[in-house]
Amino acid sequence: MTDLKTAALEYHSQPRPGKLSVELTKPTATARDLALAYSPGVAEPVREIGRDPELAYRYTGKGNLVAVISDGTAILGLGNLGPLASKPVMEGKGVLFKRFAGVDVFDIEVDAESPQAFIDTVKRISITFGGINLEDIKAPECFDIERALIEQCNIPVFHDDQHGTAIVTAAGMLNALEIAGKSLEEAKIVCMGAGAAATSCMKLLVSMGAQIQNIFMIDRKGVVHAGRDDLNQYKAVFAHETDKRTLEDALDGADVFVGLSGANLLSPEGLNRMAANPVVFACSNPDPEISPELAHATRSDVIMATGRSDYPNQVNNVLGFPFIFRGALDVRATRINEEMKIAAAHALRDLAKLPVPEEVCAAYGLSNLEFGREYIIPKPMDPRLITLVSDAVARAAIDSGVATLPYPAHYPLKSVADVFGN
Amino acid sequence: MTDLKTAALEYHSQPRPGKLSVELTKPTATARDLALAYSPGVAEPVREIGRDPELAYRYTGKGNLVAVISDGTAILGLGNLGPLASKPVMEGKGVLFKRFAGVDVFDIEVDAESPQAFIDTVKRISITFGGINLEDIKAPECFDIERALIEQCNIPVFHDDQHGTAIVTAAGMLNALEIAGKSLEEAKIVCMGAGAAATSCMKLLVSMGAQIQNIFMIDRKGVVHAGRDDLNQYKAVFAHETDKRTLEDALDGADVFVGLSGANLLSPEGLNRMAANPVVFACSNPDPEISPELAHATRSDVIMATGRSDYPNQVNNVLGFPFIFRGALDVRATRINEEMKIAAAHALRDLAKLPVPEEVCAAYGLSNLEFGREYIIPKPMDPRLITLVSDAVARAAIDSGVATLPYPAHYPLKSVADVFGN
Repeated sequence: MTDLKTAALEYHSQPRPGKLSVELTKPTATARDLALAYSPGVAEPVREIGRDPELAYRYTGKGNLVAVISDGTAILGLGNLGPLASKPVMEGKGVLFKRFAGVDVFDIEVDAESPQAFIDTVKRISITFGGINLEDIKAPECFDIERALIEQCNIPVFHDDQHGTAIVTAAGMLNALEIAGKSLEEAKIVCMGAGAAATSCMKLLVSMGAQIQNIFMIDRKGVVHAGRDDLNQYKAVFAHETDKRTLEDALDGADVFVGLSGANLLSPEGLNRMAANPVVFACSNPDPEISPELAHATRSDVIMATGRSDYPNQVNNVLGFPFIFRGALDVRATRINEEMKIAAAHALRDLAKLPVPEEVCAAYGLSNLEFGREYIIPKPMDPRLITLVSDAVARAAIDSGVATLPYPAHYPLKSVADVFGN
Repeated sequence: MTDLKTAALEYHSQPRPGKLSVELTKPTATARDLALAYSPGVAEPVREIGRDPELAYRYTGKGNLVAVISDGTAILGLGNLGPLASKPVMEGKGVLFKRFAGVDVFDIEVDAESPQAFIDTVKRISITFGGINLEDIKAPECFDIERALIEQCNIPVFHDDQHGTAIVTAAGMLNALEIAGKSLEEAKIVCMGAGAAATSCMKLLVSMGAQIQNIFMIDRKGVVHAGRDDLNQYKAVFAHETDKRTLEDALDGADVFVGLSGANLLSPEGLNRMAANPVVFACSNPDPEISPELAHATRSDVIMATGRSDYPNQVNNVLGFPFIFRGALDVRATRINEEMKIAAAHALRDLAKLPVPEEVCAAYGLSNLEFGREYIIPKPMDPRLITLVSDAVARAAIDSGVATLPYPAHYPLKSVADVFGN
């Protein structure tokens, strides 16, 4: 870890601070160039946009610009360190947006005295952008914040900690269940954790066919069930009549364990309570709910995913957000709806089943990757992500009626270089 | 104008919309690179900044990042077209900041229901940035907005329409008066206009030695004087006992006319009322208070500047803001104070007296430029601006006690390429 620390701090500070810069995309060599970029020429697009606001998409960077916004109340797994400390993460998100999908990002750190102040602030600056990616905001405030901004902004607003995690988890889950010979509709699912990511994951799985009476969500007080009167509205969605009260009760015969909670919360004894071919997504970072080594030593039939890059089957949000926004921006969707999330999950599921190009294997030092227990989720370096996921999201936006542009002529994208078409 | 319109709209839309993009400054080719840029490596700078907020300047782009922010209430000379229509101008400002001084800019358009809402919004997002450049906000709201933000933010906040214009005007004025054989201390000054730029110009001239009793500010009701009871606090600063009531009264024997008002408001008759070697800064755009042709035809001894690039002596804000922020950022000044503004004006004044390199003349299609009536203000393409102005501002910040870093080892800068030192 000391090596990583040194390398990370050097990466962030040398040869210049940070990871992003703003660059010019048009010529500025001559006085004439500057007369077009600024006064007097710039008055022309100003007048045009004053006449028709939609022309902001033609004459400014709005249509390819996403704000990555945080209040710093839940940074990674580190907690509430305040908005300024979140800046490296938000800039990092900008790096990934650009690297993988050609999306320009302004990171905005908001020092807000209340959730309402945060909402007001983001709403007022939202016209600057083509989309808003909320990040590292603690639950339950993040739910109200996202809902309010979706209602009040006419551009896509997406809380990646919720939905990005949900989409990638769902993709992997579908493949894991297929390998286990089970269906999402019948799977008994234990969800360890009841925060933003956990509730969003379960909500998406329900949208895709999982049954609420088969989901056992576990919070600090045990199983979320219909007899409890201490549930907030977000957990209450998952409450149903059941005799199960403890994690152990819930694990008896369960098909799936999704951990979005904390280190080492799934014991070998707990794992042994599960049904055959148990699917275990132990996503707590850096230490999973059960280590893959311990899980495999406990049961040979386990199908496992984690949040870590050094084990197979990483649930990594970068598989989702760059491509989801790419697709949404390219058909100028007014929101990112459930249909688009499901389409992204299905595209990721399908991609994992395709033969993996050699260069992708090589990027991870692996000799081969083939659909199966050790490969149920695509790798971030797979160049087909932008092609398949962005296309699926754009099509779903059109089909579900939230797109305001037709299917782009240059779609499906071949690569990031293809983003701006011909 | 049709040609300019066509060219400007094409410039802004082809081959891609807008003028800026966000680019990566660190390697992102390998999985290891990404582990440093984002999870898990990014947790290290997060922890460091959580421990010491100053380290945001070491590990993020904050220290080279300026927000160019508008509410769109006074866009160029076009009026209140709303925040979205201001976006091409704000992006254009970003182009100039980057092109001339290597400063990264996020343009932020704010849809605020009140000046207080605008202030609250900018304050809450201010930690994202190393400085804030306010732009195209109407008077008198701009005064309260700027004052509140200067008080509430611990980074430089600068309303360029006020102070940028004032600084460049002051620089040219000092040279014009020198050529006229007059002193700022004794010059009788008529200021046509009483808005943000006008009051700021006069305020800076007073800071530099002009006498309030020699300044005759003209608003819609005539001369601003001590007998009026309809003056806001910003104009009231310039009210003094005088018998002059009209523009014509004020022009009698005046040494200087500064026009920041509207087209054709200075008549040949008015110009003829002025003293010998009259200094006329007719800065209304696109049509000046008096055209240079008409002024020169009226009097051969006039010394003239305008806001236009197609006449000699353009009062162009780009001579100021990129280099002022560059200097302020490089010594991490907590504000841009009067000393720094005066230092910038003096540096611009001095630069106009230096021999002009051939390439600068060539950039403007001129065979030579030499200090005199036709050249009292430097040209934007002069590569010595960043060297001289940024250095002067940085030194003034240090000398006046608002710098928090020592004089940078790589100063004075040789060029934009030199911005990040060795």
